[in-house]
Amino acid sequence: MSPTLALARDLIARPSVTPDDRGCQDLMAERLAALGFRIEPMPFGEVTNLWARRGDTGPVFCFAGHTDVVPTGPLDRWNSDPFVPTIRDGRLYGRGAADMKGSLAAMVTAVESFVAEYPDHTGSIAFLITSDEEGPSIDGTVKVVERLEQRGEKIDYALVGEPSSRERLGDTIKNGRRGSLNGFLKVRGKQGHVAYPQLALNPFHVSAPALTALCAEVWDQGNEHFPPTSFQIANLNMGTGAENVIPGQLEVQFNLRFSTELTPEIIQTRVRRMLDAGGFDYDLTWRLSGSPFLTPAGELVAASRAAIRTVTGLDTQLSTSGGTSDGRFIAPTGAQVVELGPLNATIHQIDECVGVEELDQLSDIYRLILERLLTERA
Amino acid sequence: MSPTLALARDLIARPSVTPDDRGCQDLMAERLAALGFRIEPMPFGEVTNLWARRGDTGPVFCFAGHTDVVPTGPLDRWNSDPFVPTIRDGRLYGRGAADMKGSLAAMVTAVESFVAEYPDHTGSIAFLITSDEEGPSIDGTVKVVERLEQRGEKIDYALVGEPSSRERLGDTIKNGRRGSLNGFLKVRGKQGHVAYPQLALNPFHVSAPALTALCAEVWDQGNEHFPPTSFQIANLNMGTGAENVIPGQLEVQFNLRFSTELTPEIIQTRVRRMLDAGGFDYDLTWRLSGSPFLTPAGELVAASRAAIRTVTGLDTQLSTSGGTSDGRFIAPTGAQVVELGPLNATIHQIDECVGVEELDQLSDIYRLILERLLTERA
Repeated sequence: MSPTLALARDLIARPSVTPDDRGCQDLMAERLAALGFRIEPMPFGEVTNLWARRGDTGPVFCFAGHTDVVPTGPLDRWNSDPFVPTIRDGRLYGRGAADMKGSLAAMVTAVESFVAEYPDHTGSIAFLITSDEEGPSIDGTVKVVERLEQRGEKIDYALVGEPSSRERLGDTIKNGRRGSLNGFLKVRGKQGHVAYPQLALNPFHVSAPALTALCAEVWDQGNEHFPPTSFQIANLNMGTGAENVIPGQLEVQFNLRFSTELTPEIIQTRVRRMLDAGGFDYDLTWRLSGSPFLTPAGELVAASRAAIRTVTGLDTQLSTSGGTSDGRFIAPTGAQVVELGPLNATIHQIDECVGVEELDQLSDIYRLILERLLTERA
Repeated sequence: MSPTLALARDLIARPSVTPDDRGCQDLMAERLAALGFRIEPMPFGEVTNLWARRGDTGPVFCFAGHTDVVPTGPLDRWNSDPFVPTIRDGRLYGRGAADMKGSLAAMVTAVESFVAEYPDHTGSIAFLITSDEEGPSIDGTVKVVERLEQRGEKIDYALVGEPSSRERLGDTIKNGRRGSLNGFLKVRGKQGHVAYPQLALNPFHVSAPALTALCAEVWDQGNEHFPPTSFQIANLNMGTGAENVIPGQLEVQFNLRFSTELTPEIIQTRVRRMLDAGGFDYDLTWRLSGSPFLTPAGELVAASRAAIRTVTGLDTQLSTSGGTSDGRFIAPTGAQVVELGPLNATIHQIDECVGVEELDQLSDIYRLILERLLTERA
């Protein structure tokens, strides 16, 4: 059994549902300490975080990731216990196999192999690992980054192990993400009996044209790096349950994934203008989940492309689509950030899995990236 | 204390929330039996119903009503216990005071006074009382009417004691009601992640234009007897609760109150056509709560108008607006149906009440109507 597969199995066997780390970080820290890493636990609240660094100089290359996994869903629908790592037909099954314990294992074995060959590499290697990426993400990566900033410790390159690949390992890497902005709208009407509509005000009836316009709006055309901004209503609720009551309030929660063509302020102004045109009474609050970020072509992207081509023969595609990741917390420090990991086809699903061969290839890719960036070899 | 006020208090003191009669009908039946009524309990399921009749010939004049009341709502907001009848400033407070225990008391005392003076009245007097008018209305009036129809027993005039008055007793009587049609719409989309809208289909986004059009539609102009048909969405729900999930289904429940200008079939065809124009996938089911009915000018309306004018001096207005009542179950048998009762300003509310003087006037009005229709006096 390859060392990457063995470590991935050991990590999957620990049922570390957010925010419970279940000893995963200790397991990694033990391996890294043996390589000369300085181990620094950084717990915040219920969340277990690990900062580990080998070397004192720059550039600082940081592997970033999370040990927590999402809940399993109905156990009886899994073909094998999600916390008993199981190999079938060349695939390793278990919760977190692809998101992202396979990547964590590949990071550790890549570093072991790299340090064995280049004990005196340039710069530093670091690990920033949290147990709260799948949850509220309040006491995880963002807090560790804050502490590093406070003491002037800087990350130059961050490689996040999120499963970025679509059909074959390395076919896609994420070099940025759209921003995510949530809106919470309450439309106020006046409750009454359906038989007396003249005495009531139906909050959906008054706001329907504005809501329809919001759904149909073209927000931008995107740009070279980002797909167009999208607007989706995720929750829409009105009604007392009674069939003969006009309700007094409508609640709508919507989300925008936005490109660098827009800012939260521009979006908020446009939404307000469209709602105000309806002439109805409403409350609107906002929560910014993440600003868009982008790592344009540079050393990290180039090293990733080259490593992928060497190991898999593929020309990788850059993408900024998809959901948020902890990269959004690291990018604002000025670091170059790339997400590169296994296929995302099964993540968060029943029977999550990763290819056994994928794990070894991923370890090789990570190792080649280190060679490019932290040795004189390139 | 007047006999009508006394009986109204005795009825209010029984907390007969739907479908619990709590002995109200026994109390009425005892008084009616003493006048020579034949008492016939007609329980169906959990519901207590009373059919009582005095006389064997036609025409049959029937007082129709209900002993059940709606729930009290928060007790601490009432100024006196809703089931402890309390007089303040000339008003009798308690749940059911206006809807419709005051009317029931007035019916009984009107009949007592009328029978004392006209023991050999023409035709028959009947009472059709249920304990499920405020609830599902499945085992109440509709079942009693079915049984009467089965045995060929016919009602010629039905006076429903629903609170019809707006500002002064007798200013308005209901001589018909609009139809009520419920629609249950499910719009099917495809669930997915808000970050990948191209892989999902938001059921609100696709149906919003059609829903907006339904809310804005002018269905008809009404006619001489009916206000225009109205459409109201009462319940609208979509969403998993998660902020980042595009939900797979939207559920909408709407209600139309429709005039005799339209039929359920015409409405259903028009709604389907408007939904089909949107080109989305949906299920639509219907439930007809009641067809519209109308008692145009006739003996019952004329007798009601004359009695109101004698007692109150008011010229009453005919109306078909407002909610449904059990009149919808009696009218299809061919009976003339009128609703005439106290002010409806406080029904279903905190501190429901009826004027003490109103109760005696209502008893007088009911008695005069009996005189007009069941004696040679008129």
